[in-house]
Amino acid sequence: MKFEITKESIELLRELVDNKKTKEVTEIMMDLHPADIAEAMDDLTVEEAKFIYLLLDGEKASDVLMEIPDNDRKRFLRVLPPEFIASKFIEHMDSDDAADVVAELDEDVKKEVLNEIEDVEHSGDIVDLLEYDEDSAGGIMAKELVLVNENWTVATCLKEISIQAEEVDEIYYIYVVDDSQKLKGVLSLKKLILTPTNTKISNIYDADVMKVNTDARQEEVAELMDKYDLVAIPVVDDIGRLKGRITFDDVIDIIREEAEKDYQMVSGITGDVEPGDKVWEILRARFPWLLIGLLGGILGAVVLRSHEESLKEFTQLAFFIPLIAAMAGNVGVQSSSIVVQSIASGVKDVETTSRRLIKEILVALSTASIFAVLIFFYNYIKQGEMALTYTVSLSLFIVILFASFFGTVIPMVLNRFKIDPALATGPFITTMNDILGLIIYLLIGNMFFGLL
Amino acid sequence: MKFEITKESIELLRELVDNKKTKEVTEIMMDLHPADIAEAMDDLTVEEAKFIYLLLDGEKASDVLMEIPDNDRKRFLRVLPPEFIASKFIEHMDSDDAADVVAELDEDVKKEVLNEIEDVEHSGDIVDLLEYDEDSAGGIMAKELVLVNENWTVATCLKEISIQAEEVDEIYYIYVVDDSQKLKGVLSLKKLILTPTNTKISNIYDADVMKVNTDARQEEVAELMDKYDLVAIPVVDDIGRLKGRITFDDVIDIIREEAEKDYQMVSGITGDVEPGDKVWEILRARFPWLLIGLLGGILGAVVLRSHEESLKEFTQLAFFIPLIAAMAGNVGVQSSSIVVQSIASGVKDVETTSRRLIKEILVALSTASIFAVLIFFYNYIKQGEMALTYTVSLSLFIVILFASFFGTVIPMVLNRFKIDPALATGPFITTMNDILGLIIYLLIGNMFFGLL
Repeated sequence: MKFEITKESIELLRELVDNKKTKEVTEIMMDLHPADIAEAMDDLTVEEAKFIYLLLDGEKASDVLMEIPDNDRKRFLRVLPPEFIASKFIEHMDSDDAADVVAELDEDVKKEVLNEIEDVEHSGDIVDLLEYDEDSAGGIMAKELVLVNENWTVATCLKEISIQAEEVDEIYYIYVVDDSQKLKGVLSLKKLILTPTNTKISNIYDADVMKVNTDARQEEVAELMDKYDLVAIPVVDDIGRLKGRITFDDVIDIIREEAEKDYQMVSGITGDVEPGDKVWEILRARFPWLLIGLLGGILGAVVLRSHEESLKEFTQLAFFIPLIAAMAGNVGVQSSSIVVQSIASGVKDVETTSRRLIKEILVALSTASIFAVLIFFYNYIKQGEMALTYTVSLSLFIVILFASFFGTVIPMVLNRFKIDPALATGPFITTMNDILGLIIYLLIGNMFFGLL
Repeated sequence: MKFEITKESIELLRELVDNKKTKEVTEIMMDLHPADIAEAMDDLTVEEAKFIYLLLDGEKASDVLMEIPDNDRKRFLRVLPPEFIASKFIEHMDSDDAADVVAELDEDVKKEVLNEIEDVEHSGDIVDLLEYDEDSAGGIMAKELVLVNENWTVATCLKEISIQAEEVDEIYYIYVVDDSQKLKGVLSLKKLILTPTNTKISNIYDADVMKVNTDARQEEVAELMDKYDLVAIPVVDDIGRLKGRITFDDVIDIIREEAEKDYQMVSGITGDVEPGDKVWEILRARFPWLLIGLLGGILGAVVLRSHEESLKEFTQLAFFIPLIAAMAGNVGVQSSSIVVQSIASGVKDVETTSRRLIKEILVALSTASIFAVLIFFYNYIKQGEMALTYTVSLSLFIVILFASFFGTVIPMVLNRFKIDPALATGPFITTMNDILGLIIYLLIGNMFFGLL
C-alpha cells in the first residue's frame, strides 16, 4: 500500500504517532519521499514531528529537514542540542545544504555544531562556504562533485569515480583539472563510457566549458544556466581553480524566488507570505503598502480640499474622480510591470533606451487618444455639461501620458542605480499616479468651468 | 578571440554579413552558442538572418531556430520551402522540438514537411507527438531516451547505450523496460559504471521510479519534478508503456511561463508582451483591462451622480473618494494575490478552506481596525466636521472587510470551478472593489450627514 498525503492519511499518521506506534510509523516513513514527509509534518505539532525525526535515519532526517519551510526549521533547531544537530543532520548533508542550515544558527551554537562534526573535511567545506555572500555563486554552490586529473587515463578515471561518486548524489558532469586544481574542461559520463579505457583524459575532454566565478550574483548564474539549458555549472575562483558546482534545482529555486518577489511587489506585499503564516506575519507583510495607500489618499484629500470652492460650484467634477484615478493607476502599473518583466527576463538590452522610450510614447499616445475619445462620446451622448465633457477627455488624455511616462521611466532609473526596479510597481506607482491624476484633473476642470 | 554580444560586435557582424564575408561570419558562428546566435539575429533584418542560417550546419541551424522568439520563427518559416524546412531544420531536431515547430506550420505545409523527412522513424515520432494536447505531458515530452531491457546484462547494456546515445543529447537516466515496453524502473549511469559487467540489469535497477501519464497537465509535471528535484521524468501511457521523457529545461520553461502569466494578470496585461513587440501588439495586450477600468470609472460616475444632491450639500464627502477607492483596490489585490500565489506554489492544501477563511477574516479585521483608527485620528486632529470623520472611518473599516472578503473568495471559487484564479487579481478586483467602496462610502456618508 502506498501512503498518500490526504487529510485522512494525515489523521491516521497523527493517531499512530500519538499512540507511539514506532513500528507502523517507521514503515510508512520508509516508503515516503523526504518532500512528502516534510509536507505531512507541516500539519503535526512540534512534539509529533520530533517523534518522527527520531525514527528516521540520518540521511533521510537531513533530507526532510531541508524540505520544511525556513521558519519552521529555525524554530525546530533551536530546541535541539548542538551535538544532535551535527550528528543527526549536518554530517549527512551536502555541503551547500549544511552551510545553509549552519548559517541559520545563533553564533555560539554555530561554533559548537561545527566542532561536533566528526568529518573534518566536511566541516572545513562548510566553513569555506560560509565565507561567501549567500546570494553569490559561492554561497549556493556545493563542494561535492566528481573531479579527475587531465593526465589520467579513462581507466584510472573510472576507478577514481567509483570512489568519489559515493558522496555525490548525481554526477551530471565530470570536471577535469590540472595539477594545480585549475579547471580545464568537462567530460560527460556518456563520453567516458564510449571511449576505450586506455585513452588519456586530456585527449577527450571538452575544453569549451561554461563556468562562473564564486562572486557571480545568483541571478546571473540562473540566467546563464537557463539560457544554455545547463544541468550543472562549475564555479571557479579568481585564478580559475575549481571550487564547487551549482545544479539545476538551485536554478529552479532562484527563478521561483525572483518571480515571487516581483509578484509580491506588484501586488503590494512586502516579503514572503506562505500559506502556513501566522496572522501577524501576514499583517506585517501587508501593512507598509497599505500605509502608503492611506497617505496617498490623505494627500488626495488635501488636494481636493484646496479646490473646495470649485467642487461646491461644479459638483459634477466629483463624478469622474474615481475614473481618472483608476485609469492613472492601471496605466502606470501596466507600464512599470512591462519594464520590470523585460529586465527580469534577462534579455540583453540590445534595444536601446531611446528606441524603447519612443515605442512607449507611441503606445501611450495611442492609448490616451483611444480612451479620451471613448469617454468623450460617452459624455457627449449623456448630454452632460460640455465643460465636464471636455475636462474629462482632455485630462484623461494627459493623465494617461503622464502615468505611462512615470511607469516606464521610474523602474528604468531605479535599475540604472542598481535598485530593484520592482519597487516602482504596484501601490507605489498607483498612489503616485492617483495624486498626479487628481491634480491634473482639477486644474483642467477649473480651466474649462471657468471658461465656459 | 571570443565574440561577445555587444552593440559594437553586432554592428561589426552586420557589416560582415552585408559585405557577404562568408568566411569571417562562419568563423564567428562556429564559436557561438545557438542561444547567442539567436540573440544576435534578433537585431538583424530577415535577409541578414537568412544569410547566417545558410552558413550554419543543420544541427546548429535547428538549435538556433529553437532559440528565437515564437513569432519571429513563424514569420521566418513562412518564407521557406517545405523541403528546406525538413532537411535543414526538422531532421536535426529532437522529436519534441520538431513537433513544436511542425505544429506551428499551416496545415498543407505541415503535411509536405512531414513527407519530406527522410528518416521515417523520426517523422513517425513527430506525428505521434502531435496527437497529444500541447499542454500535456505527451505534448512536451521528447521521444529520445536511452532504454534497456531488464533481461540484459550490464555489458549488453553498455554496448546498446553506445548506439542509442548517438541520438540523445544528455542521458541522465537509463530506463529499464520489459519485453512489452512497460517501464520497470530506472538505472543511473553512475550505478552502471560501478557494477560488474556480467550483472543482470533486473538485479540492479531502481523500481521505485516517479513517472507521469501522457495526459498529465504540464503544471502537474513541473510541480512534481520541482518538488522531488528530478532532472528528468519518464512518461508512460495508460498501460504503463514508456513513451518519452521530460527534462528539467522543460520544467524551467513551464515555471517561467506560469509565473509570467500570473504576473501579467495582476498587472493588467493580457498575453505575452516581449521586449521586441510592435506597438499594436503592446496596445492589444493592454487594452482589455483598461477598458474594464474605464467602464468601472463610468459606473463610479453613475453612482456618484445618483448622490449629486448630497455631494452638493456636503462637498467634503468628495475629499475622501480617492482614499476609499485606493484602499479598497490595494486590499483586494493583496488578498487575491496571496490566494493565487498559494495555489500556484503547489503546496497541497492541507490547511482547510474554513481555517484559511478564518485567518483571512482575522487579518481583515485587524487591518480594517488599524486603518480606521489611523484615519480617525487624522481627521480628528484636522478638526473637520465630525460627520465626515465618522463617515470616513466607518466606511474605510467596512470597505476593507469587503475588499478582503471578495479578494479571497473570488479566486478560491474560480479555482474550484477550474478557472484560472489569477483572473481575479489586478484590474478586475480593483475595479470591482472601487465601485463597491464608493457605494458603501456614499451610503454611510448620507447616514451620518443626515443624522448630525
